Order: sequence, then C-alpha cells, then structure tokens
Amino acid sequence: MKVSVLGATGYAGAELLRILYNHPDAEVVHITSESHTGENISDLYPHLRGLYDMKLESMKDIEAIGSDSDFVFIGLPHGHAMEVGKALADKPVRIIDLGADYRFADTSVYEAWYHVPHTHTDAVRVYGLAELYREDIREAKIIGNAGCFTTASILALAPLAKQHLIDVNTIIVDAKSGVSGAGRSAKQPNHFPELYDNFRAYNVAKHRHTPEIEQAITDLSGETTVLNFTPHLVPMSRGILATCYASLKDGVQPELVDAAFEKLYGKEYFIRLLGRGAYPSTKNVRGSNFCDIAWHIDERTNRVIVLSVIDNLVKGAAGQAVQNFNIACGFEEKTGLDYVPMYP
Amino acid sequence: MKVSVLGATGYAGAELLRILYNHPDAEVVHITSESHTGENISDLYPHLRGLYDMKLESMKDIEAIGSDSDFVFIGLPHGHAMEVGKALADKPVRIIDLGADYRFADTSVYEAWYHVPHTHTDAVRVYGLAELYREDIREAKIIGNAGCFTTASILALAPLAKQHLIDVNTIIVDAKSGVSGAGRSAKQPNHFPELYDNFRAYNVAKHRHTPEIEQAITDLSGETTVLNFTPHLVPMSRGILATCYASLKDGVQPELVDAAFEKLYGKEYFIRLLGRGAYPSTKNVRGSNFCDIAWHIDERTNRVIVLSVIDNLVKGAAGQAVQNFNIACGFEEKTGLDYVPMYP
Amino acid sequence: MKVSVLGATGYAGAELLRILYNHPDAEVVHITSESHTGENISDLYPHLRGLYDMKLESMKDIEAIGSDSDFVFIGLPHGHAMEVGKALADKPVRIIDLGADYRFADTSVYEAWYHVPHTHTDAVRVYGLAELYREDIREAKIIGNAGCFTTASILALAPLAKQHLIDVNTIIVDAKSGVSGAGRSAKQPNHFPELYDNFRAYNVAKHRHTPEIEQAITDLSGETTVLNFTPHLVPMSRGILATCYASLKDGVQPELVDAAFEKLYGKEYFIRLLGRGAYPSTKNVRGSNFCDIAWHIDERTNRVIVLSVIDNLVKGAAGQAVQNFNIACGFEEKTGLDYVPMYP
Amino acid sequence: MKVSVLGATGYAGAELLRILYNHPDAEVVHITSESHTGENISDLYPHLRGLYDMKLESMKDIEAIGSDSDFVFIGLPHGHAMEVGKALADKPVRIIDLGADYRFADTSVYEAWYHVPHTHTDAVRVYGLAELYREDIREAKIIGNAGCFTTASILALAPLAKQHLIDVNTIIVDAKSGVSGAGRSAKQPNHFPELYDNFRAYNVAKHRHTPEIEQAITDLSGETTVLNFTPHLVPMSRGILATCYASLKDGVQPELVDAAFEKLYGKEYFIRLLGRGAYPSTKNVRGSNFCDIAWHIDERTNRVIVLSVIDNLVKGAAGQAVQNFNIACGFEEKTGLDYVPMYP
Repeated sequence: MKVSVLGATGYAGAELLRILYNHPDAEVVHITSESHTGENISDLYPHLRGLYDMKLESMKDIEAIGSDSDFVFIGLPHGHAMEVGKALADKPVRIIDLGADYRFADTSVYEAWYHVPHTHTDAVRVYGLAELYREDIREAKIIGNAGCFTTASILALAPLAKQHLIDVNTIIVDAKSGVSGAGRSAKQPNHFPELYDNFRAYNVAKHRHTPEIEQAITDLSGETTVLNFTPHLVPMSRGILATCYASLKDGVQPELVDAAFEKLYGKEYFIRLLGRGAYPSTKNVRGSNFCDIAWHIDERTNRVIVLSVIDNLVKGAAGQAVQNFNIACGFEEKTGLDYVPMYP
Repeated sequence: MKVSVLGATGYAGAELLRILYNHPDAEVVHITSESHTGENISDLYPHLRGLYDMKLESMKDIEAIGSDSDFVFIGLPHGHAMEVGKALADKPVRIIDLGADYRFADTSVYEAWYHVPHTHTDAVRVYGLAELYREDIREAKIIGNAGCFTTASILALAPLAKQHLIDVNTIIVDAKSGVSGAGRSAKQPNHFPELYDNFRAYNVAKHRHTPEIEQAITDLSGETTVLNFTPHLVPMSRGILATCYASLKDGVQPELVDAAFEKLYGKEYFIRLLGRGAYPSTKNVRGSNFCDIAWHIDERTNRVIVLSVIDNLVKGAAGQAVQNFNIACGFEEKTGLDYVPMYP
Repeated sequence: MKVSVLGATGYAGAELLRILYNHPDAEVVHITSESHTGENISDLYPHLRGLYDMKLESMKDIEAIGSDSDFVFIGLPHGHAMEVGKALADKPVRIIDLGADYRFADTSVYEAWYHVPHTHTDAVRVYGLAELYREDIREAKIIGNAGCFTTASILALAPLAKQHLIDVNTIIVDAKSGVSGAGRSAKQPNHFPELYDNFRAYNVAKHRHTPEIEQAITDLSGETTVLNFTPHLVPMSRGILATCYASLKDGVQPELVDAAFEKLYGKEYFIRLLGRGAYPSTKNVRGSNFCDIAWHIDERTNRVIVLSVIDNLVKGAAGQAVQNFNIACGFEEKTGLDYVPMYP
Repeated sequence: MKVSVLGATGYAGAELLRILYNHPDAEVVHITSESHTGENISDLYPHLRGLYDMKLESMKDIEAIGSDSDFVFIGLPHGHAMEVGKALADKPVRIIDLGADYRFADTSVYEAWYHVPHTHTDAVRVYGLAELYREDIREAKIIGNAGCFTTASILALAPLAKQHLIDVNTIIVDAKSGVSGAGRSAKQPNHFPELYDNFRAYNVAKHRHTPEIEQAITDLSGETTVLNFTPHLVPMSRGILATCYASLKDGVQPELVDAAFEKLYGKEYFIRLLGRGAYPSTKNVRGSNFCDIAWHIDERTNRVIVLSVIDNLVKGAAGQAVQNFNIACGFEEKTGLDYVPMYP
C-alpha cells in the first residue's frame, strides 16, 4: 500500500516513519511539512539518516498526494485534518488522523472543548481504538485515531464499563505522561532544566482528552458519564501510566472484575493482562504497541484501581495508527508491530 | 541545644545534618550507625567532607547519648524508635522520631499496618505535623514526625476537612514521589537503569501512609474517614506531588474553598498558597521546607482537586523535624530553615 | 539456525533476545541462568511477556546445550566463557562471547588486566569487531565480540591509525556511557538517587578496555600503542559517546582525514559518517546497531578530535554479536538489525 | 552593602538572589530585566515566592541604579557589561560581571573569540577567580568573574602549571556540563525530549572558554599555552566535571604532584582535595561553592589526569561572584556561602 504522512516532522510523524520502515506492505510515498518544505527529513531527525533521506513536501497540492496514496496519515494540529478530509472526500484514498478532528461522534462536543468550528460534520468516520472498535475500522474511510491519554484510560476502564461493574460517575483518571507527548516545539516550560528533577500537573479539569474518555465510557456502559481526568508531566521522554479509580457496584466480587478483563482482552495480542495485584511499568512497553494492564481492589473503600501503561508515541499514536491501518487493509493486525519493547 | 542523630546514614539523617549545619542554636554531639560504627560520616557521604568529619558511633549505649543530648532525632526503620523511647523515658532528653513508631494515637492501627507489636503504648507523644498540631508540640516529650506522603496529603486536605466542605469518604489521594523516598539501600527495582525513563505505582491500597492520613482527616473533620491513597515512583531524586480528589458537599461555592485555605494557612510561613487554578511544581520547593498548594474546582463533577508539593526529605522529613524542634525549643519556627529553594 | 544464550538475565542477554525475536533465521532454543534456573525469563523481564515465556535452564549440561545449538552466545562475566569454549571445543557449535575471554590475541595481556589465568590459550578465535575483522569472522569457531567502549573508540580511530595520519602515542580517549553498561545487579553507587543529576569518572588509567583499544590500534597502525582511556558514567540508560584526541602527523591536511574515513567506512551500512565538523548524539543511535561518527580538526593545536556514538547494548554488545552471527552464517549483514533508532 | 543585579531573570541571576538571601551583609536594592520590566521576579521564578516579591526594573537609568548601589552584579549576555562599566566608570559603585567582557587582559583575544569590538579597553579590572587572584580582587573596581568551565579547568590545572610539572602544550580539557549552563531561554536542541537520555559534544575546538583557560595557564606557568577544550552536555540540570590531561615533565614523581595541590590549595576553604586516585562527583558539590579535585597518574603514558567538579551556577557563576564580593568588601570569604551541598 502506498502511504503518505502529512505533518511528518512532529514526534508522532517521525515515529510513524520509524514503524513503517519495517512494515512489509507499506511504502511511504510523500511526507509533508509546511515549515520545512524542501528540507530532508534526516536533517531534522538525524536518527533517520541513511533510512529516510526523503524530501519534505508541502501539502498544498493535497489532491495530488491523495491520488498517489492508498492511505494518508495525518500528524497535524487539530483543525487541519478536517480540511484534508473534505479535500479528499471524493477520492478512494483513506485517512487515519492522529489528531482530534475525527474522534467525536457529536461534533458539538469537539467544538466546545477545542474552541473551533467543525467544518466536516457529515464525515463518515470511526473512532480508531482498535481493540474496541475493530469492526467499524475495517471499512472506514476516515479513522479518528484515539488520543494517547485516552487510549490508556479507555482500555483500562472498558471491561468494567461494559460489564456494568462500576458506577461510571465515580471515575477519576489520574494520568502521567512523558514529555514527548507535548510535541517537538521548544517551549519555555518544557526546557530541559525546567522539567528535569521536577513533576507537575497541568490542565486540571479542562484537558481535551476528558470528553473523549467520557464518550467511550458512555458508549460502552450505556450510561452518560462525566468524570475527572488529570494529566501530569513526568520528567522522562516516553510513556503514559493511567491510574483509574471507580467505585464498584454493590456486591461485585473480585472474580467478576478479573473475568471482565479476561473476557474483553483475553485474546488481544497488544493488551497484556498482568492480573489483579500487579504493577505495570511504562518501561516495559517502551517503543512497542503493547498496553499492559493490572488492577487492584480496595475492600476498605470498595473501589477498583486500574493501572495501565502505554508508549504514548506508539500505542498512543503512531503504533495504533498502523494497527488501524492493518485492520483497514485486512492485514494481520500485528504486521510491522511485532517486536520487543526496548528495555532498559 | 545539644542534639544527636540516631541512624545518621540514611537520606533523612544526612539531610538533618545538612540543615542543622546552619542552625544557630543546635550543636550535633552524636551521630550513630550500627552498620558503619567507627567510620567517618564524610566517607559515606563525601558531600559532607570538611563540614562533618565526625565519627559514627553505635547507639548501644543509648543512655549515654541521651544524657549528652537535649534532643535526639531518630532516623531508623520503624520498630527501633520505640525501644529508644522506652530507654530514655526517664531522662529529660526529648525525642523527635522521623519514623512511624509514634505517629498513631491508636497503636492498634500501627500494629495492623506495620505488622509488629507496639511496645511503648503508654508513651506520651504528639503527631508532628507542625502547622496543625503546633500547640501540642511545644511541650511534647516525644514527637512522631509526620511522614512524607502524609505531610503533603494532610496539608492539602486539612482546610476542607476542618471546614466540612467535602465528603471525606470520597477522598482519593494519588501521590508521586522522587526515589530518595525509598531510602539509600540499593535494591534491584531502584537500580538506575530500571527506573530511568520509567514510571510506576506501588503498594496500591496497602501503603502504610494510608492510616496516617485517615487519622488526621478523621481528627480534623470529626468524621471517621476511609480513603484511597496510591503512591507512584517518579524518575527523579526529590519531591512529592499529591493530587487529592474529593466531592464537595452540596452548595459549597468556590469562594468558600478559597476562604478555607486562607483561613488555615494565611499566616503560615512554610505554606505558600498559589491559589485556585494554579500549578505547583516539585522543583519550586526543592531543598526547602515549603509546601506549595493550589486547588481546582471541577463544576462538571462537583469535585475539588488539591495539588500540593513538598521536598520529601525536607518538609517531608528532616526539615519538618527541625521545624518541630524549633517549636519545642521555643525558637522562631523558621530558624535554620529560612532559605531559598534550589532551582533549577 | 538454532541459537542459545548463556547468561540471558543480564542486560546484554535480554537485548540479544530482543534482537533475535525479529531475526528471520535464528531460533532461540536454550536460555540459561544459574541464579534463576527454572524461572521464566518474562518474570524477570516483564517487557518480554507474551514474547519470550521461556524457562531459564542451568548451563551445567553445557554439552547438551552445545549439541542442540548451531551458535552459542555467551553473556557471562569474564572467566566463564573460556570454560564453555573448552567444553565445546570438539563440537561443531560456534561461539560468540560477549565478554572479554576471547578478545586478546596475547592472553598474557588478558591475564595482566583481568587478574585471572587464561585457561584456553590455544583457542582459535577472532576479534569480533565486524567492520574491521569481517573476513576473519566468516569462518571463526570462536568470536570474541568487541567491548562496548572499545567498539566506539576503535571505530573512531581506525581510519586514522590505518592511514598513519596520527601519532598513535598521543591518543586520549575520553568516553562516556549510560548506566546500563554497568550491568543489572543493584549496587549502592548505581542506586537511582546516587546517580541521578550526577556525573563522575571511574577506573581512570586502569579500565580493562584500555588494552583492547591498544591491541586494535597497534594492529591497524603497525605501531605499538599505549594510550589513555577514561570512562565516565552519564545519568542515562543507554549510549556511549567517545571523544578521541590525537595529534596529526606533520603536514596532514583535513582532506586526508576526510578521505581516510570515507575510504574505510564509505560502504559500511552500520557506520554513518556525519562528516567533518558535525556532532553525533547518543539518542540518534539508541536501540540500533549504528555507529555515528564525526571529526573535528583544531588547527591551533594540530589535533584531530573524533566523536563516535553507539548504543552500548546494541553495537556495543548484542547487536554486534548478531552482526557477527550474520557474517559467520553468510547471511546479509543487516539481517534482523535493519530498523530505525528510537527517538526521542 | 547595597547590591543590584542586572539581568536577574537568567539562571545565574536567580542563583545570585538565592545566595544573597542568606548573606548577612548584602541587601538587594534593584533587580533588572529588559524583557520583563515591571513584572514580579517571583512570577517568573515561583520558587522565590514569599522570599523575593520584587519588581523587575529596566536598567535604562543605569546611573541611578549605580548611585543606589555599592556593588552591581551583571548577569547579561556578553557585550552589555562593558556599556555598564563605561556608564558607571566615574561612580564609586563596584562591578562584578558574570559574563566575559572583563575577563581578558588582552581585549584583542576577546574580540577574536567573541566577534564584537571591545569598547572599554582601558577599564581597570581583574580576573575574578578568587583562589588565584585574591589579592587583585580586594581593591578592584571591576571584577570579571571567571566562567563556569574555566573555573573548573583552571583550578584543576593551576598547581601543575604553577609548579612547572607539566608540558602545558599537551593539555587537553574534556569537560561536561549540566544543561542549566546553556541558559533559561527555550531552544529546540535543549527541549526536554531532545536531551533526555542523550549525550553530545558541542563547539569542539571553538568554545569561547578556551582562550580564558589559556590565558590563566599562560599566566601561571609563564609559558604561552595553546590547548584543547571540548564541552559536552550532560542530561542533568547542574554540575560540571572537567577531565584534564597533560604530560608530566620528565622525572616528575607522584609525590611532587600531590605536593603541588597541597601547597596551592591546602588552606582553601572552597577547594576540597580528595587526593590522588579519588573520584569527585558533581552531586557532592551541588548547590554549593565547593570545587572538589582529585588526580590520577598513569605511569604507562606518563600523563596526569585531573578531575574537578563544581556547581556551574555556584562556584561557576553566582557563588564565585559572592566570594569575590566578600573579598572585595573585606568580609570573611565564606560569608553567605557556608552551607552543605544538596545530596542526593
């Protein structure tokens, strides 16, 4: 399949190139950047030297790019993908957007949280969280790849929501991410000496991944869900750990919780169930598409605490995009994604 | 005042020496270590070279040490301080224990969580969290210095508990600590390459600081409190951030929350209220005795989220011990503790 | 090819498993550990869960392991591999030792620096630095895989030594390594809080990689070489940067230096020449088998400064072992090693 | 003494404020920033909250600031201090410049390396490396505070140069610095994910600290010195380690080397001689004005290797400035600087 990457110079774009390099059935035909048009990607990312000595193009002629490509991956800031989606609406090319434009079934939710009008409200698209929406992804024209925090959070909570084991309105997700999640642009708060040996929260009660998690839990549980999501910045490069709290419904026994995880994920390749009482570490999934999950039940408070870890750039972005690509192409789902996490 | 440090070779002991060096009214007369008896502390901690070239003694002759000292600081693993407390019960020397032995009013709670019998149950002692129990500390014979996670958590929640603004049984404390909190002994999980670029939780639903927080919130609110406390390990040396969640009682307006913090802490030197909507960072208090606090109100879920940061070795251990020492001696509370955090 | 890994629980052993997982022509048949015999490797290294749920065996019956295997990789401390080498001397199995036992042509040098007698002095073996000793490796029974610091250092200096452009007795190698190079065993100096935000040198003028570099430079230049090698520990997990200094011989022009690098490495896949005046970064090769090299000429002092970077666990250990394996098997050299470094 | 800090918003300026807070004989009267005029310093540096809630002023009216101050500390980029120096030439105020403008006796060297004309060539000034130029500093009008890399390097080499024990033209200084040395401005190469788990060199054979080291060694040895200086960036906040190589002159015995260090530094408070064969660590001096030094002699190559560590923001900048201030005022040299390094 011929694929193009729009916005290839962000961390997610570069990670896509890393993964696609070993994909046996994908050929990268165009990579774009408006601010670095004409430059070689390996001058911006010297780790790609000798592997991707490709020129970055402008996406101004998006139709030509669309014509050349079977799939277009979009790694642009929100607001741009819907323009691409409209421009390519009538072409056979399919789209996987790593941003937020196509993640919401109700575009008014998008507009309320992202503060821009949605201009492609009639797009036929699916939510790209592979383990939960696989069937929809197979035939989709546009896939709104799930966000990084949301992937970790939804995968942690989905079995409990789906089996109605928790009171969904008691959910609190306390999430922690490495700094690569904040993008490649230099900003003073993310300057090395500012973050090193430092830890802080940000966007409390207003992070845009909140409604995305709510949408999925509402969908899975059938109950309108409002929850708290709190992101924190960890002084490391990669990795997300989500600590998810919820009150168990009366009479829910630990074995029921165990069974819910086993039932939903027992056969999933990329979800590794560590079991009740275990502790996932971000480093155990680093560089890979795995999501490791464990859970704890506090009988004193009758709460369940679910811990999930992913690599934010892989299962939280580029890896999940390739997983969705594989599903959409009918390839084996782990094609190009079947390797060992990098430890230590 | 003549002071001695029992267990001076742990990180908290070494930090005590750092702080006491600049205390105008304290003179260190004995430092002890059973495993390094006879060695020079600056051979174990070369940063002390030229400043503390003192010999480590055994604490076998605890009575002699007690006789020489006005105050004994104890930096030993739990279970040891109560033996010291008994041995020195009849001497005028006063005790500040940085461990858990004297933190619980109800020693059966201690026994249930620490799995050892308490052998000094009739000790007259106070809980050493200075801002909340100052008056009790003034005359105390034995001060059970508050724990690191607990200091950050209790200070964050105390105003809300005391003013009855929250439902105390909805409290969830999600806490994150630098690795110095795990002590100086080398253990495989804390080996540098294992933790670097890594993040994980530990002791979910069973960390021993849980009952200590519950004890304080119960005391402050007058309501029996059971809560969730979850510790995480951050790949950094120092610092704790506690993210504390609770449901507001019906009708509690944001201004009431603001007023509760202002009322309890408005005149406290070591508590810096950053205000509603702000973000404390662990690095802003690094090396200092400050606790920076901010809070957020999520109107969608009617929860308050309080963020507090401390340096786990200072306000969470040695600094608070010196603050308690100052109170107990009648010194100005910030004596020896009035300096600028080390940033960046 | 059937391969076994002796000493699979060290970082180099685990990294071998990571790389071999994607090698199309290698099948891992035995993995051993004396201290964890009977345990599952994925219990020790949870990142391997689902990928290598293999039992660790004892190597006591080394002959059976040797009979089952076409190649044995050895990741044991020095002194052990020569025992294996003797035991398997008469079997067709071939050996790649990641330790030092088979690196020295003159075993008295080994004995002088490693302080143990060499017990397999008549072994026919080759030095496993692929780019320089490729032809010897093809048919070798025993390959003494080059060390991590030495690989970075020798590759940096080889073109200059071989072309006689430098005075070899002015060579100074100042090298810096991530902490994974110190192994997986927890030791107090490598405890997380001790190294974090810290930098130090170690083994000045006595590190065992010194004679290994000297051996290669002597061999390449034809001149007996004595040099300084100084290792340092960088607070990071992976990566080595070697800064190599030497005085240029009279009249050596910069273009001659450029040409020497181009001549020796122009066609090497795993050596990426960044050119004169450039700056390699360890992160640009992280997780990969690449060695990035740049050089600078200081006309004021008439010295050349060569900078080289590798991932110590890949090109400095497991990756180079697989590269040597490929050469020894007649496979394409980059088989199983052709992927993108992990950045950021 | 009334002191002002010009350019208070850089890391060195903020560190000056940290140190001066505890100086019993200094009162900060003005702090300036052109880009943040009118803002409160504690809004830019929240760690200063409650300690320095001072407004930043413009330095446009430098004469008024000069009139109010006994000392002016300058933390501005090179080129600015000489303008201040001229403007205040006729006032009694004394100047300590933390930048390079007043470091060179021969201003043509400054011009050649800094690429700007020197406009205050007739300034009477001294080089502010306290241990070596103490007598000159006492009465100086203008003190050109030594640079960070240069302080570590010169202190390491001075005893050997002064006693003529080394061939000065064989000197190679391989130096490593934490990232705070690069300043507070966000730049893409110093963005957190770019540097984390990464190590690299920069400015090889052209760093501006080279001629500053050469000037001092030439002065101390009486021999014109040309040397190599190579800086590297360590993924940590603070600290410099300099690894300094030189060939010993014929017949120089180890004891002579030891004696040279003892003779020059035996009575210095801020220089801690760890001795021959020891290993200084940057963390052992973190936050303090100490310089720890050790040395090794390689009898195989007849080279001496000196290792020195400082905190780049303290002994390498603000601490040394205060040390110079103390000397210039006739105060005890360690006034305000006598505290324990922050470990771990």
